[in-house]
Amino acid sequence: MSDTLHTLTLLDVLQEHRRSHPNRTALVQEGRRYTYADLEDRVNRLANLWESLGVGPGERVLWLGQNSLAVLEGILACSVLGAMFCPLNWRQSPDEIAFVIDDLQPRVLLWHEGEIGEAVKAARALAQWKQGTWIHFDEAGPDGYEGRLQGADPARRERAIDVHAGCVIIYTAAFGGRPNGAILSQAGVMAQNVNIMLVQALTSGTIFLNSGPHFHIGTLMVTLGVFHAGGANVMIRRTEVAVIAEALHAEKCSLAFLVPKTIDELHAFNADGRYDLAHFRSAALPTEDYSMMGYGQTEVGGLVTWAHYDRKATSIFGRTSPIAVVRVFDEDGNEVPDGEVGELGARGPTVGLGYWNRPEINARRTRFGWWLTNDLGRREPDGSINFVGPKVQMIKSGVENIYPAEVEGCLRSHPAVADAAVIGVPDPRWIQSVKAIIVRKPDAEVTDAELIEHCRARIASYKKPRWVEFASAIPRTPAGPTDYAALDAAYGGGGYPGGKDYKY
Amino acid sequence: MSDTLHTLTLLDVLQEHRRSHPNRTALVQEGRRYTYADLEDRVNRLANLWESLGVGPGERVLWLGQNSLAVLEGILACSVLGAMFCPLNWRQSPDEIAFVIDDLQPRVLLWHEGEIGEAVKAARALAQWKQGTWIHFDEAGPDGYEGRLQGADPARRERAIDVHAGCVIIYTAAFGGRPNGAILSQAGVMAQNVNIMLVQALTSGTIFLNSGPHFHIGTLMVTLGVFHAGGANVMIRRTEVAVIAEALHAEKCSLAFLVPKTIDELHAFNADGRYDLAHFRSAALPTEDYSMMGYGQTEVGGLVTWAHYDRKATSIFGRTSPIAVVRVFDEDGNEVPDGEVGELGARGPTVGLGYWNRPEINARRTRFGWWLTNDLGRREPDGSINFVGPKVQMIKSGVENIYPAEVEGCLRSHPAVADAAVIGVPDPRWIQSVKAIIVRKPDAEVTDAELIEHCRARIASYKKPRWVEFASAIPRTPAGPTDYAALDAAYGGGGYPGGKDYKY
Repeated sequence: MSDTLHTLTLLDVLQEHRRSHPNRTALVQEGRRYTYADLEDRVNRLANLWESLGVGPGERVLWLGQNSLAVLEGILACSVLGAMFCPLNWRQSPDEIAFVIDDLQPRVLLWHEGEIGEAVKAARALAQWKQGTWIHFDEAGPDGYEGRLQGADPARRERAIDVHAGCVIIYTAAFGGRPNGAILSQAGVMAQNVNIMLVQALTSGTIFLNSGPHFHIGTLMVTLGVFHAGGANVMIRRTEVAVIAEALHAEKCSLAFLVPKTIDELHAFNADGRYDLAHFRSAALPTEDYSMMGYGQTEVGGLVTWAHYDRKATSIFGRTSPIAVVRVFDEDGNEVPDGEVGELGARGPTVGLGYWNRPEINARRTRFGWWLTNDLGRREPDGSINFVGPKVQMIKSGVENIYPAEVEGCLRSHPAVADAAVIGVPDPRWIQSVKAIIVRKPDAEVTDAELIEHCRARIASYKKPRWVEFASAIPRTPAGPTDYAALDAAYGGGGYPGGKDYKY
Repeated sequence: MSDTLHTLTLLDVLQEHRRSHPNRTALVQEGRRYTYADLEDRVNRLANLWESLGVGPGERVLWLGQNSLAVLEGILACSVLGAMFCPLNWRQSPDEIAFVIDDLQPRVLLWHEGEIGEAVKAARALAQWKQGTWIHFDEAGPDGYEGRLQGADPARRERAIDVHAGCVIIYTAAFGGRPNGAILSQAGVMAQNVNIMLVQALTSGTIFLNSGPHFHIGTLMVTLGVFHAGGANVMIRRTEVAVIAEALHAEKCSLAFLVPKTIDELHAFNADGRYDLAHFRSAALPTEDYSMMGYGQTEVGGLVTWAHYDRKATSIFGRTSPIAVVRVFDEDGNEVPDGEVGELGARGPTVGLGYWNRPEINARRTRFGWWLTNDLGRREPDGSINFVGPKVQMIKSGVENIYPAEVEGCLRSHPAVADAAVIGVPDPRWIQSVKAIIVRKPDAEVTDAELIEHCRARIASYKKPRWVEFASAIPRTPAGPTDYAALDAAYGGGGYPGGKDYKY
């Protein structure tokens, strides 16, 4: 028997939805509604178009924009072609975007204006990779996204689909100063979809407001799970309270990820009750959710433990999901005894294919036959898995991860800076804020405002230091690396993800 | 990266449960309780024992008994060895059991007394296959099931596990007069487990009373799903109301499949409230459940459509599950238009590997790249899938399928019978009862009681005719086969599964 007898693809799910739910809404964007039949037609056209632009197995398509139907239909079109779709963090600087363009070398680059347009244009000029086709999402007429899609061949072409090939790439994990693109396979996406249906009780009646960013696995895994369940994805570009209230009301949304601050603002905004939010039954919170949702990371396709899989779990990070196994390893690949801290490793169908174009890192991270997460954890006596923190220090600002090496590299590029380190200090609103400790070059003059502006111009604004302190030296551990514990003690650092004073 | 990074096995699930839920009860049988740690120890011993008896990849282990912990631990031990475990319908006759022994050629045959012991001994004498090791479940001492298990090597041996190999065999589909063993792969079992967790809301808190028979996929798929969720399986041998009431009470069971009649009896039996049934929250009914549970068959690993996946479905057989695709085919493998009847075909990870030792049937049933179910169905205008009935007429008695060819073959073997046909007639308690229409040989004498006794001695008692009518000829269609429609019209047949007057 052929393997296709036992293997389903995202296209199979889409075509089945077309039969099972012929008139059900799959997508809503800016008042336009698309049924599952519409969605399959669009995916067929997109796949045929991109194929004509050189997107075949293993090739990449880059999305440089905010939340959009283009992300879901783009992932589906890539799944048909054996290609990979990358929704990039639109809050990044031109330099950061150009790095990804050159790293990913996409055949097709989709972009829209909004808050990213200027950065995209600057990145396009900076990037060495010139062989991709740029398509402007907002452009009306035949050369824009919609025009090209409508002009493409609508035929269903038969293609052999390898579900174990990469399908989605999300850049993350910039511990070394530059991010790495975590690859998820189509089979991994399919498996995680069913897992998310289970943990979030998704059905074909679910109407999900895509208020979190598509470039984060926390939102994207739910977007794809809702698609798989036959529900509706309502796309909004950004988390603004007026847009959220209007979408929750107009589309009768049942599910959205909203941070507590946004919930409060929504409540105040709708004090007169002009929006009907009665269908909105869930506000799974991306920060408080750590205690509801379990442990995961992009590289393993999202969640691998669930807290509410067993509500009696005493650990906030929960128990292994039904489609993962998790072990705590020492440096030699031995499982450490319960109660001892080690590196979390995971196996299972959702675990990704490693990072794009990083064979050495991938070999190191899979050297024991498990995906080593670069996160520390502990198996508690009750069997639950507790996330202790990243192996390398990381700062959390809202939902964003900030890797000190990225910010320090930018600061060190300033001509007046001899040495630099950044730490996270507790922030009542954003979890943590970035503080830079700077050693100036002899006789060099530079102010804190100048250094902050230097970063603002070069890296994503949310990564720039909020405070700068000048020092005569950066403390080092005996082995040489920056002594972050000493810096935290001296400059008020704390509240890191996983730490005991981590507030969310 | 190695495939084991992305592939989980039943043993992975078991070992993860041992870590996540070290003291949780996995199994209860006759007051004895086994944790997940106990279960893994037992599975390791069983696998090592059976391996020493020749059970390697592709070999078979046959269970000739009623519900038992031996079924779950046997499937797990087989999954470790790449072997297949077959829980056989214990209501069958010696001749029927001997047929399966010779068809399956198991290396190990496990049996217990109860209501099957005498038939097993007779079958053992009848069977040609003499190369298996017989192990008596009830025997105390070192040669019995428990003695051998306790005497086996307890080591965890490292073995490469092919999850796509067969793991479970269930005999069914005796349309041709003899049953066929439907093979389910380990990957298929794993996929269906998560599906069942979703449809039945199984968690590690679920305590499932195994009141239905393990040789039916309807119960076994839930047993395995509860295992996968980390819940507890409570084993009882038979559906007797006193046993059920005691188990529901003592084990605080939350889930069981009980037919309406049993629920009524339970209610009467517990009129004085001496049993606390407060934890029992679900009575998914194996007959009425057809409208709750969707369409499936053993050969596709159980359910492939769910009715309550979308409660608005107008068809009683529901919409496709998230891990299956279903099409309605004509005889040439073309999809028929919505609203037209054709043969149901399925694809997806739960679809089995075909029938053991039946290459011609398997080739025919997969000739379009889909598993053809031998069932007729229709896609309704709202997209739901409606089961219309078996392609070949089948009689339903309680939860049992009765294939006319099996009964007719037995009747024709009587020396006084020239020709025979059986039909189902509506039965208010058992859905249908079997009626035989008999043409006697010239001058032969035989009574209805003699023919019923002839069947009772040779085939499972539930298959024997309840009524016999004598006729001068069996009507034939122009092409030659028995004209069942004419027989139904003449002798009161009706109420067949899927038919408009099907009462459950």
